[in-house]
Amino acid sequence: MNRITPVLAALSLAVPAAAKTPPAAPPPPPNLEQVADEALVRDERAWDFVEGITTEVGQRQAGTEAEARGRAWAAAWLKQNGFRNVADEHYMMPTWVPGEPGRAEILGPFPQSLAVAPLGDSASTGPEGITAEVLMFRTVADLQAAPAGSLAGRIAYVSNAMTRTQDGSQYGFAGPTRWVAAGIAASKGAVATVIKSVGTDSHRNPHTGGTSFPAGVKPTPAGALSNPDAANLERMFKRAGGKPITMKLVLTPRDLGETQSGNVVGEIVGRNPSLPPVLLACHLDSWWLGTGAVDDGAGCAIIAAAALNVAKAGQPLRTVRVLFAGAEETGLWGSKAYSAAHLGEPIAVGIESDFGADRIWRFDSNFRTTNPDLHKRIAAAVARFGVSAGSEVAGGGADLNIVRDQNGALVDLQQDGTRYFDLHHTPDDTLDKIDPAQLRQNVAVWTQVVGILANEGTAILTGSPMPSAPPIMDGKK
Amino acid sequence: MNRITPVLAALSLAVPAAAKTPPAAPPPPPNLEQVADEALVRDERAWDFVEGITTEVGQRQAGTEAEARGRAWAAAWLKQNGFRNVADEHYMMPTWVPGEPGRAEILGPFPQSLAVAPLGDSASTGPEGITAEVLMFRTVADLQAAPAGSLAGRIAYVSNAMTRTQDGSQYGFAGPTRWVAAGIAASKGAVATVIKSVGTDSHRNPHTGGTSFPAGVKPTPAGALSNPDAANLERMFKRAGGKPITMKLVLTPRDLGETQSGNVVGEIVGRNPSLPPVLLACHLDSWWLGTGAVDDGAGCAIIAAAALNVAKAGQPLRTVRVLFAGAEETGLWGSKAYSAAHLGEPIAVGIESDFGADRIWRFDSNFRTTNPDLHKRIAAAVARFGVSAGSEVAGGGADLNIVRDQNGALVDLQQDGTRYFDLHHTPDDTLDKIDPAQLRQNVAVWTQVVGILANEGTAILTGSPMPSAPPIMDGKK
Repeated sequence: MNRITPVLAALSLAVPAAAKTPPAAPPPPPNLEQVADEALVRDERAWDFVEGITTEVGQRQAGTEAEARGRAWAAAWLKQNGFRNVADEHYMMPTWVPGEPGRAEILGPFPQSLAVAPLGDSASTGPEGITAEVLMFRTVADLQAAPAGSLAGRIAYVSNAMTRTQDGSQYGFAGPTRWVAAGIAASKGAVATVIKSVGTDSHRNPHTGGTSFPAGVKPTPAGALSNPDAANLERMFKRAGGKPITMKLVLTPRDLGETQSGNVVGEIVGRNPSLPPVLLACHLDSWWLGTGAVDDGAGCAIIAAAALNVAKAGQPLRTVRVLFAGAEETGLWGSKAYSAAHLGEPIAVGIESDFGADRIWRFDSNFRTTNPDLHKRIAAAVARFGVSAGSEVAGGGADLNIVRDQNGALVDLQQDGTRYFDLHHTPDDTLDKIDPAQLRQNVAVWTQVVGILANEGTAILTGSPMPSAPPIMDGKK
Repeated sequence: MNRITPVLAALSLAVPAAAKTPPAAPPPPPNLEQVADEALVRDERAWDFVEGITTEVGQRQAGTEAEARGRAWAAAWLKQNGFRNVADEHYMMPTWVPGEPGRAEILGPFPQSLAVAPLGDSASTGPEGITAEVLMFRTVADLQAAPAGSLAGRIAYVSNAMTRTQDGSQYGFAGPTRWVAAGIAASKGAVATVIKSVGTDSHRNPHTGGTSFPAGVKPTPAGALSNPDAANLERMFKRAGGKPITMKLVLTPRDLGETQSGNVVGEIVGRNPSLPPVLLACHLDSWWLGTGAVDDGAGCAIIAAAALNVAKAGQPLRTVRVLFAGAEETGLWGSKAYSAAHLGEPIAVGIESDFGADRIWRFDSNFRTTNPDLHKRIAAAVARFGVSAGSEVAGGGADLNIVRDQNGALVDLQQDGTRYFDLHHTPDDTLDKIDPAQLRQNVAVWTQVVGILANEGTAILTGSPMPSAPPIMDGKK
């Protein structure tokens, strides 16, 4: 209650003493701190957005009509909530769709079905499937060490497992299994690849995500087994006594060629629209398996609610622009298209929300050493929400290509990712996984940070070095 | 460590003082308490069974060739582990199979796919599916109150939710949604029924299980939505503003007619085989979605390991018989067949394990008032494992029909069911959900209890009243 006392006081001042005095003048708007404090306990707009898009649209596979419905829904929401200059900026992109639900059947020595999903850019087995012996590799390095041609006619399986981390850093350790194993296996003759899901849960829900094949290597079918199924396959190897393990794999994704996608943008117009805007990014598309609640409906919900909150404290100096990027999952197509279309329009600073809806615990920027005053002001302002000041150099999220391309200012608001890779790219990415209290903490912190940045009169980035984009943003989200 | 001190002492006595004295006589077998204590920390046979059958066989849908493979696997395991009189006692049963994976698509106003699985004894929609408006009912009572004919041409949806209980008692509250809603809806003209899963998790894994249709009511298609999908459907009703919600439901189960199933039995033969045996029951079949680890691979693992442990303490007075019943899930076919075939052969006492693999916390019998000495001896013997003495009248599990039909003695070893209905009848019923330490606690308690009962020279049941079987055992498991 302590936090909202000032707001309540302001509200009580606004109640006219009925009929005894002339109507009071409209109260001054609450200040930024009051608005952020209020968001912590009472924000409903972020929930409304993510509940709405997951209920009324659901999954939004990049480049498909479902993504287009998601864009229309989001643009309407922005308009209804008072954003200006709402637009759906189209671009064309190569579109891959998953086809029928995947099937992985062990034919022998222990016949049974395993839960599998195709990886993005997987080739098709055709409806008849591929039947072959499975060879197991512990890591990508082990697979890399296999002699040329040694996988001819086989299905490669890579068993490397992800462990749980708060900062999500194990994505860099476990992710390559998904990003590159299929390409390496294909280059050595494998007819297909299956991997242990890059994820930390133990449910029968495979984690999909993009894979890739090097130039000159013909794409093969590639899928992820759920973690319980991967564990079962590994037990089969132990129990088979050297007998070959034969799998029939049926994955039927297909390429649709070029289709239309788009980036939805909207603005809270600043008092001085000629100043470079503050850009808040998220992505609107999701993999087809889940409803894109934590990846990344929550991110769009958080940034939109924060932008609206900033305006509650009075029109900001700079324009605040939200970018609901399209087609992030399948190759950052929206991020790239946005940068290509707007590279000549400077951005003051970029921030992205794309790591679920659990609480923010650390603030980083790429101007800590070059603009320490601003960095410290932000750090001090978010400390009351339990957010520490980090010493990492912010790299920005996947949809901030334009800011990196401009060598611009970046802020990272690090979320607690302890649960994130339980849900990431699975059917289980649904609304029930979002904790409304933690979602509101995100909105509060974002409100505070964006409010400060949008009212910053001087240039935000004053010469600090730009990090290169981390590898997970190189088309392999 | 305290618990195993006597065992270690016994072992150390057995080590001959090498070369100084003549070879010692073989040590006496450990006593029952020592064997049970040892099982608590070291039993590996229960794990070996449940790991083996889930890895080498997997799902074991009743009446199918997979169940037959499960029986062959289990019979081989029993023989290899020293059971005698191992047999697969066949019977014929009407067999229902689930067909292709279910599909539930909302066509409007919010098009998207929901995760669904057919319920046992569901009719088929045909591959083309059924498309109809969905009408929502909160409870079976609300559905029952709907006027005759009022569901004509509609799909009924029942939203009643299960909450988590340690003793599983909410199955009686939530279960009727699955057991009878489809039949009631069909009797009022509904073309199909979908229900919220009878389960306590929030994953995209529907909980199947048997449903039923009253005599004279033609079976309709019936499915369970996963809990996140059910919640989504309910949000759609809130957001639709009265617009009809249209679902296309595709469920393609079919009846195979009569097929062969069987009960696998095996014995630890007692010193006096003419005495009525102690019957330990579980079931070997599982629904097709999961691998039947907690339902009920674990149960068979526990009873088999316990029977073997009892023998470690010396040949018991009475024969201990394990009954791995077939086709429990789809209508207790194995339990009924076993009773029909063996009703004239008295059973001394029956116990069943069919509630997962989490720890036992309460002991009940149906001879507490009529044979208080025995009841108290058992209670005192299991107290060291954290098991309290209950005052309920044991009703026995679903596969103990023969004991109920004989008005015989029953013991219930109540397991902690807090997690059970997260997994029950879902794809997530897999080995990783079993906690090896809690599994061993089950084996230890069972060893102690079965050891006492198998060495009881006098009649166990001496006149206490028989409870009727609870409704969940009436073909509705």
